[in-house]
Amino acid sequence: MPENPTVERLKREALEANISLPKHGLVALTWGNVSVIDHEGGFIVIKPSGVEYESLKLDDMAVVDLSGKHLEGLKPSSDTKTHIELFKAFPKIGAVVHTHSRWATVFAQAGAGIPALGTTHADYYYGEIPCTRRMTPSEIEGDYERETGRIIAETFRNIDPMSVPAVLVHSHGPFCWGVDARRAVENAAVLEEVAMTAWHAQTLNAALPSIQRELLDRHYLRKHGESAYYGQK
Amino acid sequence: MPENPTVERLKREALEANISLPKHGLVALTWGNVSVIDHEGGFIVIKPSGVEYESLKLDDMAVVDLSGKHLEGLKPSSDTKTHIELFKAFPKIGAVVHTHSRWATVFAQAGAGIPALGTTHADYYYGEIPCTRRMTPSEIEGDYERETGRIIAETFRNIDPMSVPAVLVHSHGPFCWGVDARRAVENAAVLEEVAMTAWHAQTLNAALPSIQRELLDRHYLRKHGESAYYGQK
Amino acid sequence: MPENPTVERLKREALEANISLPKHGLVALTWGNVSVIDHEGGFIVIKPSGVEYESLKLDDMAVVDLSGKHLEGLKPSSDTKTHIELFKAFPKIGAVVHTHSRWATVFAQAGAGIPALGTTHADYYYGEIPCTRRMTPSEIEGDYERETGRIIAETFRNIDPMSVPAVLVHSHGPFCWGVDARRAVENAAVLEEVAMTAWHAQTLNAALPSIQRELLDRHYLRKHGESAYYGQK
Amino acid sequence: MPENPTVERLKREALEANISLPKHGLVALTWGNVSVIDHEGGFIVIKPSGVEYESLKLDDMAVVDLSGKHLEGLKPSSDTKTHIELFKAFPKIGAVVHTHSRWATVFAQAGAGIPALGTTHADYYYGEIPCTRRMTPSEIEGDYERETGRIIAETFRNIDPMSVPAVLVHSHGPFCWGVDARRAVENAAVLEEVAMTAWHAQTLNAALPSIQRELLDRHYLRKHGESAYYGQK
Repeated sequence: MPENPTVERLKREALEANISLPKHGLVALTWGNVSVIDHEGGFIVIKPSGVEYESLKLDDMAVVDLSGKHLEGLKPSSDTKTHIELFKAFPKIGAVVHTHSRWATVFAQAGAGIPALGTTHADYYYGEIPCTRRMTPSEIEGDYERETGRIIAETFRNIDPMSVPAVLVHSHGPFCWGVDARRAVENAAVLEEVAMTAWHAQTLNAALPSIQRELLDRHYLRKHGESAYYGQK
Repeated sequence: MPENPTVERLKREALEANISLPKHGLVALTWGNVSVIDHEGGFIVIKPSGVEYESLKLDDMAVVDLSGKHLEGLKPSSDTKTHIELFKAFPKIGAVVHTHSRWATVFAQAGAGIPALGTTHADYYYGEIPCTRRMTPSEIEGDYERETGRIIAETFRNIDPMSVPAVLVHSHGPFCWGVDARRAVENAAVLEEVAMTAWHAQTLNAALPSIQRELLDRHYLRKHGESAYYGQK
Repeated sequence: MPENPTVERLKREALEANISLPKHGLVALTWGNVSVIDHEGGFIVIKPSGVEYESLKLDDMAVVDLSGKHLEGLKPSSDTKTHIELFKAFPKIGAVVHTHSRWATVFAQAGAGIPALGTTHADYYYGEIPCTRRMTPSEIEGDYERETGRIIAETFRNIDPMSVPAVLVHSHGPFCWGVDARRAVENAAVLEEVAMTAWHAQTLNAALPSIQRELLDRHYLRKHGESAYYGQK
Repeated sequence: MPENPTVERLKREALEANISLPKHGLVALTWGNVSVIDHEGGFIVIKPSGVEYESLKLDDMAVVDLSGKHLEGLKPSSDTKTHIELFKAFPKIGAVVHTHSRWATVFAQAGAGIPALGTTHADYYYGEIPCTRRMTPSEIEGDYERETGRIIAETFRNIDPMSVPAVLVHSHGPFCWGVDARRAVENAAVLEEVAMTAWHAQTLNAALPSIQRELLDRHYLRKHGESAYYGQK
């Protein structure tokens, strides 16, 4: 594969996003990975497997095509097939983030979705952040990482992945996504805030109902869609 | 609007206070905003909407009059009308801070006020920090940010905003205020301490009564009012 | 008072100890103060009231005698009389630390002592860290800071303050002490660790008994007293 | 003992690992110690007792043989005999780490093992991380630190210490190990993550079952053993 400006740009975007994960307090050790896709070129760039963030270099970034074939860089993350499934199932997304961030992992391990309890949640997620069902033994023992992506897609059969850009994989942890790497990482950071506050609000009041529908609409729609009025321009 | 020393001073005060929010650990991403008012001139300076703290510059600061008219700088925070309502309802305050700080947001999402359980609370807040009622669908769907300010004013109908300088907006988060920006930010930082300790004290002992009236008086009044004896001079 | 090498040494010891409080994460804003005593000279050095840690200078440190008379430096901490009462009641101690550190304050606000649940506790505290009774209205409305010291002394009527060097003042927060400022601050830092772990261990198992007597003895006595074998020499 | 390249190498490995403990947030004050063994030479290098991490020097590192005899450096950690017992009982390990890290200590104080609730746990620990039984009074009053090592060995009578490289000592805290110091410290850092998330997942859902056996297998075996496919090469 000859040098390619798109590849270089995506490597840089993926590198910067991966390095930002420990800065946001979202990963310990080498856990967590970000991938970005070039829809036209049909390839993704992803963190190499088991490499520490501080030593990660541009040319270490792994490039693979959508069949999973390794094209460039170091050996890709062991979670690569999950990322590929998500890019196939959710064609509008440009980047995927996987972490084991603490508060989101708490909910994943409890097998519970994160209910929309406040406007912080509503500003980024248009409803409950779902938790997948448990995987079956044959899914786990088969093409496990691909099946992980499939069960996420199944969970979103009736949910728009662009308005709820995160999922908790049961007994595992969160996957988040967005139109680009910066937005996907931002969603992962917000997820941690809403998981922490939801855990404590629910513990304070076990019978707590979700946020009012009107308030969820108001906050989500003031930041997203045609009538958005948050931010500059 | 010609260059004006008061405007410049308030821009600087508002800029510094906004930048101090992430230093105090009170905000993630671009959330949170501080405004300051010039009562005589009838204008406020507030953080622009959706701008990151590290890139915030003096001339980005948004200047608006009390009708909400944008006079200078970038587009103001989407919460500007709430700030304006608070300045109208509480004429003695000089600055307003809004954050989604974690522990205060926990109480807001649970729809619960923060009871006065200790002297840390009493040193800054002369009684429970109230949570507003839920807003009605028509308040949410109408002039939402203005209504948010109005429901705060309603919550303080029988509370002195100078002695309880914070509120939790139901399902949302805290608004704090003070005579100037430094004091308003200090109140926001203290709020986080009292929310964290109240949550855990209540969980340890669900039947915990509030602090004794005499102790609340002693601590509040040794820092505030004519007989204060805390601090230098 | 002419320049005095002991005063200068104690000012430095008190200054360094006060500045170390935010480094240990034990204080927010200007809360918290350390005092040290010169038993022979009959005076103490303590943090001035309401001064921020980063701007604290050697000559700001307040010097007062044991009647509370202000001798040098800025106006002393509003908690000075409590410190003086402790120095009078516990003649072997050389320094006192007061903070509103989060986890210890949780127990103080709940009106609960911190039970000895593990060897971390036993390494520094030879039994439960007690919480005082509530103060009476007349104690609060009278010479409040002095009464705070007296109620601590009352709480230790049957406890050796050298083997349990901390107390929780009901609805307020911790006071710790030690033979010198370094040791008193160390006790305050340990208190925070044992409060955090005790809170969570108790919540995990509400019927949790205290540490076995033999284990409490073993750990306390390997660090303290004649048979100690921890540390160098 | 003449200068010996293996001794020097192990001193450096032990020094670096000990210094890394506060960087990982695993220790407060001087608590916590790492040892490494030279199986051939029959000696271990361990942190000296009660020395602060920032002042720790290469030649301070204590060298002792497997009978506990002090060969070089400062006086070894008071926990040295526990480390020696672990090296004797678990001949494949190369390093031992002891800390009082907060979340693991919570479980130790509650006398509870940490159940395998998620894939973070399964990536490093092949099943529940056990808590020892309480020690008997005669074990505590006898050769206490050696007995602590023995009770850990007893706890692993039916557990492979290479696949569950950590234990909680009842009412005390964690000991972790690994083939070398870096891996032992990594296990100690992971322990803290899994303890924090397990505590909160269990509190959210008291009836939470452990992770499915197939998922535990999948994650443990993708990182360990012959079929491992995580990491580079």
